[in-house]
Amino acid sequence: MLRAGILGATGAVGQKFVELLDGHPWFETTALVASGRSTGRQYREAVNWIGATEIPASVASMDVLPLGDDLPCDFVFSGLHASIADQAEPMLARAGYPVISNAKSFRMHSNVPLLIPEVNPDHTSLIKVQDWQSQGYIVTNPNCSTVGLTCALKPLHDTFGVNAVQVTTMQALSGAGYPGVPSLDALANIVPFIGGEEDKLVHEPNKLLGTLVETELLPASITISAQCNRVPVLEGHMECVSVKLESDASKDEVHDAFESSVSPIADLHLPSEPKKFLHVFEDERFPQPRQHSNLGAGMTVSIGRIRSCEVLDYKFVVLSHNTVRGAAGGAILNAELLMKQGLLGTRNT
Amino acid sequence: MLRAGILGATGAVGQKFVELLDGHPWFETTALVASGRSTGRQYREAVNWIGATEIPASVASMDVLPLGDDLPCDFVFSGLHASIADQAEPMLARAGYPVISNAKSFRMHSNVPLLIPEVNPDHTSLIKVQDWQSQGYIVTNPNCSTVGLTCALKPLHDTFGVNAVQVTTMQALSGAGYPGVPSLDALANIVPFIGGEEDKLVHEPNKLLGTLVETELLPASITISAQCNRVPVLEGHMECVSVKLESDASKDEVHDAFESSVSPIADLHLPSEPKKFLHVFEDERFPQPRQHSNLGAGMTVSIGRIRSCEVLDYKFVVLSHNTVRGAAGGAILNAELLMKQGLLGTRNT
Amino acid sequence: MLRAGILGATGAVGQKFVELLDGHPWFETTALVASGRSTGRQYREAVNWIGATEIPASVASMDVLPLGDDLPCDFVFSGLHASIADQAEPMLARAGYPVISNAKSFRMHSNVPLLIPEVNPDHTSLIKVQDWQSQGYIVTNPNCSTVGLTCALKPLHDTFGVNAVQVTTMQALSGAGYPGVPSLDALANIVPFIGGEEDKLVHEPNKLLGTLVETELLPASITISAQCNRVPVLEGHMECVSVKLESDASKDEVHDAFESSVSPIADLHLPSEPKKFLHVFEDERFPQPRQHSNLGAGMTVSIGRIRSCEVLDYKFVVLSHNTVRGAAGGAILNAELLMKQGLLGTRNT
Amino acid sequence: MLRAGILGATGAVGQKFVELLDGHPWFETTALVASGRSTGRQYREAVNWIGATEIPASVASMDVLPLGDDLPCDFVFSGLHASIADQAEPMLARAGYPVISNAKSFRMHSNVPLLIPEVNPDHTSLIKVQDWQSQGYIVTNPNCSTVGLTCALKPLHDTFGVNAVQVTTMQALSGAGYPGVPSLDALANIVPFIGGEEDKLVHEPNKLLGTLVETELLPASITISAQCNRVPVLEGHMECVSVKLESDASKDEVHDAFESSVSPIADLHLPSEPKKFLHVFEDERFPQPRQHSNLGAGMTVSIGRIRSCEVLDYKFVVLSHNTVRGAAGGAILNAELLMKQGLLGTRNT
Repeated sequence: MLRAGILGATGAVGQKFVELLDGHPWFETTALVASGRSTGRQYREAVNWIGATEIPASVASMDVLPLGDDLPCDFVFSGLHASIADQAEPMLARAGYPVISNAKSFRMHSNVPLLIPEVNPDHTSLIKVQDWQSQGYIVTNPNCSTVGLTCALKPLHDTFGVNAVQVTTMQALSGAGYPGVPSLDALANIVPFIGGEEDKLVHEPNKLLGTLVETELLPASITISAQCNRVPVLEGHMECVSVKLESDASKDEVHDAFESSVSPIADLHLPSEPKKFLHVFEDERFPQPRQHSNLGAGMTVSIGRIRSCEVLDYKFVVLSHNTVRGAAGGAILNAELLMKQGLLGTRNT
Repeated sequence: MLRAGILGATGAVGQKFVELLDGHPWFETTALVASGRSTGRQYREAVNWIGATEIPASVASMDVLPLGDDLPCDFVFSGLHASIADQAEPMLARAGYPVISNAKSFRMHSNVPLLIPEVNPDHTSLIKVQDWQSQGYIVTNPNCSTVGLTCALKPLHDTFGVNAVQVTTMQALSGAGYPGVPSLDALANIVPFIGGEEDKLVHEPNKLLGTLVETELLPASITISAQCNRVPVLEGHMECVSVKLESDASKDEVHDAFESSVSPIADLHLPSEPKKFLHVFEDERFPQPRQHSNLGAGMTVSIGRIRSCEVLDYKFVVLSHNTVRGAAGGAILNAELLMKQGLLGTRNT
Repeated sequence: MLRAGILGATGAVGQKFVELLDGHPWFETTALVASGRSTGRQYREAVNWIGATEIPASVASMDVLPLGDDLPCDFVFSGLHASIADQAEPMLARAGYPVISNAKSFRMHSNVPLLIPEVNPDHTSLIKVQDWQSQGYIVTNPNCSTVGLTCALKPLHDTFGVNAVQVTTMQALSGAGYPGVPSLDALANIVPFIGGEEDKLVHEPNKLLGTLVETELLPASITISAQCNRVPVLEGHMECVSVKLESDASKDEVHDAFESSVSPIADLHLPSEPKKFLHVFEDERFPQPRQHSNLGAGMTVSIGRIRSCEVLDYKFVVLSHNTVRGAAGGAILNAELLMKQGLLGTRNT
Repeated sequence: MLRAGILGATGAVGQKFVELLDGHPWFETTALVASGRSTGRQYREAVNWIGATEIPASVASMDVLPLGDDLPCDFVFSGLHASIADQAEPMLARAGYPVISNAKSFRMHSNVPLLIPEVNPDHTSLIKVQDWQSQGYIVTNPNCSTVGLTCALKPLHDTFGVNAVQVTTMQALSGAGYPGVPSLDALANIVPFIGGEEDKLVHEPNKLLGTLVETELLPASITISAQCNRVPVLEGHMECVSVKLESDASKDEVHDAFESSVSPIADLHLPSEPKKFLHVFEDERFPQPRQHSNLGAGMTVSIGRIRSCEVLDYKFVVLSHNTVRGAAGGAILNAELLMKQGLLGTRNT
């Protein structure tokens, strides 16, 4: 068992790390790190727990630790806000900790892998180019709205090439954290704006679908246009996507590309890897966030309504669980991949 | 005062007609028509009233009439389901009644005006080509999701020409009528499918933006791709739109086209015509359905977030009130236009 | 026209004052007062407007003023938080302003009227006992959950005497102001606790239903037990009430007491007084917040499901609009009563 | 393994049986029974699956059977509507099948156990008095709103005696089945009426808490008054309860009665029995349906906000999962108890 620390352990993402790591076969939570107010208190006292299950008994009475460079763990998951991650993550990498981060701070940095194990597992080799004068490094997972889109684009890009993408998102409230969106803005309403989100959707998929030439990452060159909306849904980001392909493809071929897509890491049998990476629905009413966000314990990405697009080539709907696949679950899968690749191990302290 | 009948008076759209006609300066509700069960009962007993205001006193104790060709009114508004409208509307036109319909049955018929007064007021001349052997005729208003989009496209098409449109809708529950969407499908959920809706969005705007050459309507030739979603909102359809223009336009020119757009019927001072046909929001969080659907008593169409589109040319958000502008209110405005054009008058019976 | 100031004009209650005073026949908004951040900016710039109608043109470009004792108005409405009202309201009363307050700070003070015009219009004479060394005074309206309950108890208490009350509330999100309840606590959820609310329901109705003996207020002695819940509703507090009466009453007599209840101020024809103070529904599915909160422009209190209680004597449901009748609208009605009573006039400055 | 049939397998309750029986250690689903339309089709085709997990693979391709007296199973769970259960359940009992029913048809029949294993496990002996001329019998579980209340009353009634109860419920939409409540009645709204529900709350708890004297059941004599509301929550019925006790009790003693309550069947280690039958929250904001309905896999009943009641003696909040503990899960626990008691076994056919 490796010892995992959780940075920002009392926040919404931090809580999801706590929940998902409970009973994990490889990782054990040994350090809960949070800001000043919480430090020194038991986790159960410090946290405003928002999960639908109880605080795991194994961590409930653990003392919350201050952020520092000497944490009792082998590596850390970071659920920090970018404003804190900016400083804290390099500090910990320098101190020798692998930092598996959900923060946006270093996602687009040229030496930092932006990682979805089923999409670009080879990008972890960028770690070698990081120079923290230590065994530490930073690996990031993408924005919650990027994950579903990129997982869906992956088989299309591999098979036909993707030229252009139009995407309109309908994103769940949990994506804004807690307290997040005021209820008077959320109930029976839509907010057609999420700060910074559309820009992430333009750039992150291209990095994720990029090609590694030795240690240089050549991003893909898909033109992406995004419109992002906050909708009154609890979990699960829906995305209406239209794509323009580089080569001709029939609707059946597009369907098959999704349906027959095999995860490149399937044979690693990572604990958080779902049986099915992509699930294609034939029922035109599906997927729906309330029913299908939890497919594959929240790690399966759902696709539905594949059909011709009058303007581009094909259009379809994508659903992914924003706090599991799109945040904590995605980061944990990253850590599992790194472990299998021999890049994560016991820390000599 | 002209005497108005309401077909399907106990349904969701019929109720909205009742509500909006209460206190109307030109029209007085004199006939409430509904199906067998309701016939002969007082309206207040027959209807399962879902409005947020009380049943208007003037109609509450009126007897509900059966559908027939001898109704005590000068013209009728139709809130019928298409399955009934298919037969009932021609029957009434033949009997000499102008039928101002919200049903989809005859919208795409070549001799029937599909009408938004601010968009194509001249299309009413198609009435002349209808041949019911009577003074009767049928005029229709478009689908609730078509209205907002078409009102927004109108100034762009007039100014720059529109080649192609990508639209993703997030449509309110009231658009499905009552009982409509089951709450377990609606609460905290999205249904990415609305039967027949996407097809209407492809065809109706082209008819509305078409050109009348003598008595033949040449539709516009905009390529439209639509993705329609049902979301947990009560009133107000939001649409994320991207457009490709025929001629070059700067973002400011696009903004000005919206902002300076003048309703071609402004000088008619129709009672239901809002002061502002289009309202452009500068605040990037707006428009939102809960706050802005009621602008201009539900007849103003709101536009926001005008910006460049990476794939087509420009993108923006449109909001319109689906049961007012998109149904009963739109039909009443149609009747007002017809009256000013001398096409609606007292019936000699 | 009297000149009205609004304290806390950018807050949720303040905005409702602005909205309801627009077009008021007696009062004109001449001073918008808010905290430091907003001071000196135009109202439209300073406010995060949350209403479903536009900011009234008459105030949109008005400069926001700092709190002070020299405001350009004849009296003030206070939508301040109690923490600020504690100091600000006495300061303004001392400076000679009638303060018509929605804050809780002075509601239970022995010399301050806690006022619902239809319940205890005579309590305004308590003003005479206030001693601010000026023409100023403070008058308060009750908590949003108290209003509906007390309006419903009034005819029962007058007719039969009320001994005891059990009330369970289901309160709308708007009662918590903005940003108020986080959406993750609100959507598809209930929070069975509202700080301080149950205590207000125990004490305020007894003061409101109390008897004035010269200048001393003898509170009623109804034993009240309250359980307060926050529910995902936008506007309208629902309350399930059971009462024990002092004298025998048949169900019909209870029904008649509600139905035939006449507002003691009906002959004053106050602008905000609804035609019907209490509305009794016979349909057992009603009242419902979405449909019936707006009855009487939000000033009518609705009652339904009157029936025997197995434990106490009778039980029923009460609905009232929490931000109109329960806050700004109630305060405006208070001011209208004070004006008719000759207690509100032009200020000599 | 016993072979279980599910009656009404395509309905909302039937689906929950299917979901909860998947992977059950003692029971295996071998017969899916539904009405005419579904008969002969594969379950996955016949059902409009509304669950948040996939249809279990073990039953997805099973053929749906018609209702009949020769089903390939050892006993049946009934998720039938009362209108069908009235005839179907006696027919199956006569045919020799133990019928473990969630329908209301026979709950109040004197010979039929109304059963919550933690409350009245001995009531199963009523089976002996049933006379179907076969090995068959009927056992029922209570209404979804009764379960939480009765589980909470049980320790109070055992310890102090309960005289009277006032309960106001806030019930989840899933309690109305599918399609159930129309979304326009549910979203941002409350319906203060649920047909027949208040009556069930008056009678069922008294039967459940009754005493068996030989084979006669003497019901408890608690006076109960209920007010039932439908609220926009997905899962979990909240109830605000006030109780009058027969003997004096301090608040600590009431708290201890809940906290130290031990399930009388704890030593049976039934698979669906939660570790904690009752969970008492100290945080006054809890329990809440979204977070806590799933405690103990939906079988734990939560209690919070224990405090003195000004009118009766004590008041508190109860939450229970309406489709698990309150329907399918409760019925499965009943079957597990019957099996341990030797009343359920292999059928000789």
